[in-house]
Amino acid sequence: MSEILVVGSLAYDTISTPKGKAERALGGSANYFSLAASLYSKVRVVGVVGEDYDQADYEMLTKRGVDTKGLQRQKGKTFHWTGRYEGDMNEAITVATDLNVFEHFNPELPAEYKNSSYVFLANIDPTLQLRVLEQVENPKMIASDTMNLWINIKLPELKKVLSKVDVLLINEGEADLISKQTNAIAAAQEILKLGPKAVVIKRGEYGFVLYTKEGYFILPAYPIAEVVDPTGAGDTFAGAFFGYLAKQNKGYDLAALKQACVQGVILASFTVQSFSVEKLKSLTWADVENRLNDYLKVTTL
Amino acid sequence: MSEILVVGSLAYDTISTPKGKAERALGGSANYFSLAASLYSKVRVVGVVGEDYDQADYEMLTKRGVDTKGLQRQKGKTFHWTGRYEGDMNEAITVATDLNVFEHFNPELPAEYKNSSYVFLANIDPTLQLRVLEQVENPKMIASDTMNLWINIKLPELKKVLSKVDVLLINEGEADLISKQTNAIAAAQEILKLGPKAVVIKRGEYGFVLYTKEGYFILPAYPIAEVVDPTGAGDTFAGAFFGYLAKQNKGYDLAALKQACVQGVILASFTVQSFSVEKLKSLTWADVENRLNDYLKVTTL
Repeated sequence: MSEILVVGSLAYDTISTPKGKAERALGGSANYFSLAASLYSKVRVVGVVGEDYDQADYEMLTKRGVDTKGLQRQKGKTFHWTGRYEGDMNEAITVATDLNVFEHFNPELPAEYKNSSYVFLANIDPTLQLRVLEQVENPKMIASDTMNLWINIKLPELKKVLSKVDVLLINEGEADLISKQTNAIAAAQEILKLGPKAVVIKRGEYGFVLYTKEGYFILPAYPIAEVVDPTGAGDTFAGAFFGYLAKQNKGYDLAALKQACVQGVILASFTVQSFSVEKLKSLTWADVENRLNDYLKVTTL
Repeated sequence: MSEILVVGSLAYDTISTPKGKAERALGGSANYFSLAASLYSKVRVVGVVGEDYDQADYEMLTKRGVDTKGLQRQKGKTFHWTGRYEGDMNEAITVATDLNVFEHFNPELPAEYKNSSYVFLANIDPTLQLRVLEQVENPKMIASDTMNLWINIKLPELKKVLSKVDVLLINEGEADLISKQTNAIAAAQEILKLGPKAVVIKRGEYGFVLYTKEGYFILPAYPIAEVVDPTGAGDTFAGAFFGYLAKQNKGYDLAALKQACVQGVILASFTVQSFSVEKLKSLTWADVENRLNDYLKVTTL
C-alpha cells in the first residue's frame, strides 16, 4: 500500500434537488475523495478551511485514518457553494460561489508529505496544481481533475499540468470542451495527445470511458432509482479509483485501471443516494462488496 | 426459427449532420428493422410506399429474404422526412415531415402473414398498432416502439397497445415522458405497470437498460469515434433484438433478452457509421462477430 496525497477543496454546500434541500452540508472535492480513497489506502490531504470549519468534520476524516496535517485553518469563512439540480440532475446549476479562504489558497505540503507516491490534483486552479507538483519528490503516479473554468481561462497552465500527469479524470462536457470534439472516443484520443497515458471520461448516470493507448473500457454507472444529490459523485469516483490503484501499487497498469474504474462506479453510486457525505462516511466493505457483485451481475451476459 | 412480422414506415430521408448531407436517402423504421432482423430470421414486412419508391429498394429487402408481399404501393409520394443533427447528435431536429401516402396508411395483413409468431409494431399511430394486433392469430411474442407524439396525443390508445405487448422498446426521453420520471430505472418500473413484461430503454451512445420483473441489464453502446448519421439506430437495435429472439424461439426468456440487447447494440453501431442503410445493407456475419468480440472485450473486466 502506498500513500496518496490529495489537494483539493473543503467546503460547505447549500444544495437543492428535486428530492430535497441541504443547508451548509459538508462538501468539497478533497472530502469526497478522501472518504472514498481511505477505504483502500492511506490518504494525506492538503487544503484550506475557515474558522467556521466544524471540528467534527476534521474528525470524520481522522477516524478514517486520513492524515489532516496538510489542512490549513485560516481567518475567515470556509468555501461555500450554493447550487441546484433539476430534471434528470445530470448538470449542476451554480447559484453562488463564495470562495472565502479558498480564494487565496496556496497549497504547501508538510515536509513529510513530499515523498507521497500517488498524487491526486483535484479540481483547483492549474497554477496551484503545478505548485503541488513542484513540491512532490518522486511520485509513482499522478492523476488530476479540472473544470470548464480552467479550460476557458487557464488553458496554457492546464496543458502544462496535463503534460505531467498519468491519468486525467474529467466530465464528458469538459472532455468535449478541451478536445473540441463531441464524441467521447474522439475526445479521449485528443486528450492523450496532451500528455496523459490514460483518460477517464466521467458520464454521470451513464458511467465512464477509460481510454488508453493500450485499449479502452466502457461501462455504465450502477443504476440508482432514487438519486438524491449527485454532488461529489465525480470526486468519489476519483477517490475510489485512485485509492484502488495505490493499494495495488503497480503504477500504470491497464488491468488495474479497469478494476479501479469499477471501484469508482460503485463508491460514486453510494454518494448520490444522500445529500453531502452521509452515505459515504458510514460505508462498510460489506456494502461495497455487495453492490460490486450486483453491478457485475447486471453488466455481464 | 420463427417468422417476424414488422409493421412500420418506409421513407426517403433528407438529413444533414456535422459529417455531411444525404438527399432522399432510403429510411423508415421498417427498412432498418428488416435489414437487421433478416440477418437472424425470416421477416415479413407491412407498410406503404408511393409511386416514386425505387425498385432497387424493394430488391434490397428481397435479396435479404424479406417477404415484401405486405408492402402496399399507393398513388402519390413516399413518406419523406427532413431532419438534421447538431453537436453530439444525440437528438434529431425535424425540419419537415411529409407524410404523403403514409398519412392514410391502413395496415392490412396478407392472409399468410396472420400466423406470424413474432410481431413487431414499429413507431406508428397506436390505433394502427392495435389494428395489426387484431389481425394476428396467435403470436408468441409482441414488441413495440412509440414516440413523443403518440404519448402526447394518443395516450389511451397507446396504453391499450402496452397492455398487449411483451416488450416495449423506447428512447430514454420518451420513457421519461410516458412514466413522468427522470431516471431510467424509475421510468422502467412505471412502464412495467402498464403491461409489458420487459422494457428496453434505448440511450443512444450510452447504450440501453433492459428492465424486467426478473432482473435488469445495462450496457453502453459500442463506441464509434466517427458517427456519421444516427438515423435508424434505434430501429436497427430493435431489428437485431427481435431477430435474435425469433431465431432462439424461446418466447419470453431473460437470458435471451440480454443476448438480444447485445445484438441490438452491435448492429446499431454499424448503422451510425454511414448515412441511410449503406453500412447495414452490406453487413456480413463476420463483421458482426468481430465487433461483438471487441464489444465484449471493452465491456468486461
